[in-house]
Amino acid sequence: MELLEAMNWRYAAKKMNGQKIPAEKVDTILEAIRLSASSAGLQPYNVIVIDNHELKGKIHELACPQPQIVEGSHLLVFAHWANVEAAQVDAYMQLIADTRNVPVESLRPFADSIKGNILSKTPEEQAIWASRQAYIGLGSALIAAATEHVDATPMEGFNAAALDKILDLPAKGLRSVALVALGYRDAEKDFLAKATKVRRSRKDLFIELA
Amino acid sequence: MELLEAMNWRYAAKKMNGQKIPAEKVDTILEAIRLSASSAGLQPYNVIVIDNHELKGKIHELACPQPQIVEGSHLLVFAHWANVEAAQVDAYMQLIADTRNVPVESLRPFADSIKGNILSKTPEEQAIWASRQAYIGLGSALIAAATEHVDATPMEGFNAAALDKILDLPAKGLRSVALVALGYRDAEKDFLAKATKVRRSRKDLFIELA
Repeated sequence: MELLEAMNWRYAAKKMNGQKIPAEKVDTILEAIRLSASSAGLQPYNVIVIDNHELKGKIHELACPQPQIVEGSHLLVFAHWANVEAAQVDAYMQLIADTRNVPVESLRPFADSIKGNILSKTPEEQAIWASRQAYIGLGSALIAAATEHVDATPMEGFNAAALDKILDLPAKGLRSVALVALGYRDAEKDFLAKATKVRRSRKDLFIELA
Repeated sequence: MELLEAMNWRYAAKKMNGQKIPAEKVDTILEAIRLSASSAGLQPYNVIVIDNHELKGKIHELACPQPQIVEGSHLLVFAHWANVEAAQVDAYMQLIADTRNVPVESLRPFADSIKGNILSKTPEEQAIWASRQAYIGLGSALIAAATEHVDATPMEGFNAAALDKILDLPAKGLRSVALVALGYRDAEKDFLAKATKVRRSRKDLFIELA
């Protein structure tokens, strides 16, 4: 589906019908997240991909009572790095060296620049920075889902502490920041399924200085 | 261009060639931002669209020395609401009422829910929340540009205080958080133009719980 058409088609489904998403469509959505831009290319987050009925039930019960958690097919948990460490930057340099077949030593100026920029931030600033990068990935997931005619409902309203505990995220150095339920809208039961999309006008959203 | 193909094609061009982007392609990119999802649909940010040689020169001189500022065609400044006020939520309710032709009074529970969630945050928490929404729009801009075969370089490394002053953003209740230079790569001068894309592997980025 063409991009703007897909973006017009999508909305945050409030009710889903339980239908499973084919694996190849999930793969496309995950690949769009994986290819997403991030500051310095560091991708300072992970995405937990949950396709397990029991686990979704537990999350629904203890961390997020919204119906899409259990009515959806897959649940994505966007979890940013709680803070950034030099070892993570070094691992990224090794990845670049391996991918581009260049000596890792040649990347020293880039590594030093990232470390100077990011490691000098306070842990709280690092977390804010990392969470913003995760939102770029989240946006890609929404667009990719729409182009695949899959519904995707982003959610911020959940108990992050409870969810992090269920998924053992603190031990992994991660903090959940947003959820996306992937599935199919229940057009009969969702009063929003036929509602006109509401967006600020071009004149209101943009300040055009020509 | 198909989504994943476009995302593979794009990269953050370090050198651009000065060529202007046709108006219809700029329109598509802005429309993708405008259609982007945001928490509760509030779109708590503005985008300043700069297509003015002198102004870009001033920004390049005083706030961001990266060459794409002046070598690009259009500069997008993503600026989130510095904080959220009840009047902004009320204006959004009026927009919904007008768009869907429903009485604004019927939206009272939704308005109260948003106000309860967002206005109860500290000003700093509101700013973080708003900035994350802006990053969803930023990601949409990058994807839309790529599907139009337009290069887009996101930038966080700039002097936000200087930029906000140049654009008079404090008086508008806005704070710049990220830039996107739109233009065309200078493939001859940009050593990254032919470099292999580096991304974390699926196994490293995703934690799949089936």
